[in-house]
Amino acid sequence: MGQETADETAIRKIVEIWHRATTECDVATVLRLIAEDAVFLAPERPPMRGRVSFAQRLTDALKTHTIRSSGEVREVKVSGDLGYCWADLMVIATPLDGSPAKVQKGPALSIFRKDLSGAWVLIRDANMVVVDAAELELKVDNLERELMADGPGG
Amino acid sequence: MGQETADETAIRKIVEIWHRATTECDVATVLRLIAEDAVFLAPERPPMRGRVSFAQRLTDALKTHTIRSSGEVREVKVSGDLGYCWADLMVIATPLDGSPAKVQKGPALSIFRKDLSGAWVLIRDANMVVVDAAELELKVDNLERELMADGPGG
Repeated sequence: MGQETADETAIRKIVEIWHRATTECDVATVLRLIAEDAVFLAPERPPMRGRVSFAQRLTDALKTHTIRSSGEVREVKVSGDLGYCWADLMVIATPLDGSPAKVQKGPALSIFRKDLSGAWVLIRDANMVVVDAAELELKVDNLERELMADGPGG
Repeated sequence: MGQETADETAIRKIVEIWHRATTECDVATVLRLIAEDAVFLAPERPPMRGRVSFAQRLTDALKTHTIRSSGEVREVKVSGDLGYCWADLMVIATPLDGSPAKVQKGPALSIFRKDLSGAWVLIRDANMVVVDAAELELKVDNLERELMADGPGG
């Protein structure tokens, strides 16, 4: 358990640094936590492959938004040189132009690998952080009702 | 690599059995692939905890639908008694009442644990299989445009 616990603590630490560095616009620090061949999975978009693609997207987002990233780690488990982390995340992206912030929430399941130096890096990430779809469906319902009330020539 | 490869093959086999058993409405076989304390994560709903909850949901779905589950495994990796599988999934749920089938697609990142008997079981699952949200947003846009064209007293 000793070694396992140290590894699990190391992964928790990565998640903590990740959130802080993202909020501080410190892209370089975030990149040091990611394997070169990492893959980022999410609903409704193709897999994003590679640390470089991630860096590009984060850098672009930070040109037009401030991002507050936070989360609560639910579980970390390690076996050998593989580990996973389940966390609940919240990402608040506030446009620099003053328009309303977008709040996204949801779970993430992330897989880490211990590299040859003994450091843990993110290799696969399943990000289920989304704007609430129930809200979007309610919007559709309301608009449909409004249209129906107006009726043709109403 | 020998042992690793055998474990990785075992996990691929689980995924294959999972799809076939789901399509054949064989809930008992699916359940044997799942740890009692498994957690199922997905966007837009709270974590579903436990094999029993999964069984209940699948049994309910199969009362009113036939389900065709298929997928392509992108990657399987194992270290010690922990392994993960990244797959692209497609789930087609066809209501028994004759209404149109619902097609859902997306990636899944699943974590497996080797139990004491040497068998691999699913312990954590990130399911990003969804109906295309872009379609829903387009619907909102179109309805908003229609309402705008109607205008107040239009």
